[in-house]
Amino acid sequence: MHKTRVRVVEDALDANNTIARANRSDFDRAGVKVVNLMSAPGAGKTSLLERVLGDVGDVRAGVLEGDVQGSLDADRLAWLHVPVTQLNTDPGFGGECHLDANMVRSALPEIPLPELDLLVIENVGNLVCPAEFRVGEDARVMVSSITEGEDKPLKYPLMFRTCELVLINKIDLLPHLDFDVERFLCNLDKVNPDSRRILTSARTGEGVEQFRDWLVQLPAREEARV
Amino acid sequence: MHKTRVRVVEDALDANNTIARANRSDFDRAGVKVVNLMSAPGAGKTSLLERVLGDVGDVRAGVLEGDVQGSLDADRLAWLHVPVTQLNTDPGFGGECHLDANMVRSALPEIPLPELDLLVIENVGNLVCPAEFRVGEDARVMVSSITEGEDKPLKYPLMFRTCELVLINKIDLLPHLDFDVERFLCNLDKVNPDSRRILTSARTGEGVEQFRDWLVQLPAREEARV
Repeated sequence: MHKTRVRVVEDALDANNTIARANRSDFDRAGVKVVNLMSAPGAGKTSLLERVLGDVGDVRAGVLEGDVQGSLDADRLAWLHVPVTQLNTDPGFGGECHLDANMVRSALPEIPLPELDLLVIENVGNLVCPAEFRVGEDARVMVSSITEGEDKPLKYPLMFRTCELVLINKIDLLPHLDFDVERFLCNLDKVNPDSRRILTSARTGEGVEQFRDWLVQLPAREEARV
Repeated sequence: MHKTRVRVVEDALDANNTIARANRSDFDRAGVKVVNLMSAPGAGKTSLLERVLGDVGDVRAGVLEGDVQGSLDADRLAWLHVPVTQLNTDPGFGGECHLDANMVRSALPEIPLPELDLLVIENVGNLVCPAEFRVGEDARVMVSSITEGEDKPLKYPLMFRTCELVLINKIDLLPHLDFDVERFLCNLDKVNPDSRRILTSARTGEGVEQFRDWLVQLPAREEARV
């Protein structure tokens, strides 16, 4: 009995992945590493970026800010003097709860890729849909605030499963919460045992240096994931 | 010049609203008041329900639990000895980030409506899409945890705009955060000045009694909203 090798054109019908690959090609050509940064609303994505992007050494960083409406976060990052591009999902896309590859593509003309080494895409605050859409990123990072509880990896498994790095944030509030770090890590192990984890606090600075190191040492290029 | 009166069949093409009205008719027929309870992940919806549903006097309450996966919250509520029905958006609906009218309709056969006066529908944790879908509710309540920051009404205006009641939760953490209650209320006024607000803490019990009173005194029937 013969085994026939069939080259399957995977995801041929998936427009999002097709566009994500096009984005990825553009990022690679420009030599830009791209991080898709995700979390629930108010978990601290912007506060952590404020902490790390002010000092990333020789790395030329930029931000693409995804929000349903407004530019509050982009305005917060403006003082860092890094290029920040605002992408609103409300007027053009009907109030989408996530960024997809095509939205990111629509923003590319506004992003000075040749001037960047690192682009952080701050996704819309949401633990469900952002995880479903690759946008051409090299790596995925998510922020899980300890105020959200230990059960989140089990309730939103796709989000936690598809991230290389999980930042367990607002750790300064630990004395005031009933949050059990070990239980959270145990739940995270159930859905993504290989993920890197850093305990962080944008307020006290705990873990910020490790996050910064992780960002600037992003491996040259991982296996293509999109 | 004549003015012609045209009776417009509103939302004729909006399947969700059509189904929401059907749900509403069923709820009305059974004499059940329905609350759509929404928030970001981990804001404290289930903890507040644990606090209030244990003691709602003569009111016969039930819960419809919406989650992407699992039954963690339904399990938490089981000890209250109220009917809890679990609705997962993952297997049947492709991991939806919200409940819509049709999902709720699909769960109706499992809900003992004739035995209830009040049904609380705990939506999927998300500040965007749940607000876009009426499910046949009488009223909308959202929980905004102070750990999420003061800017949330401005970043997720539709959610805050469409709720009758906003619970500002985890107020016990106020001494440990930089959260400015007045600034939050000012932002809320910008998008929904008419909303009722209650400061709550599921941990200390602050505001729980007011929330319970609001629930059990739900007006006989508001203007049809769906």
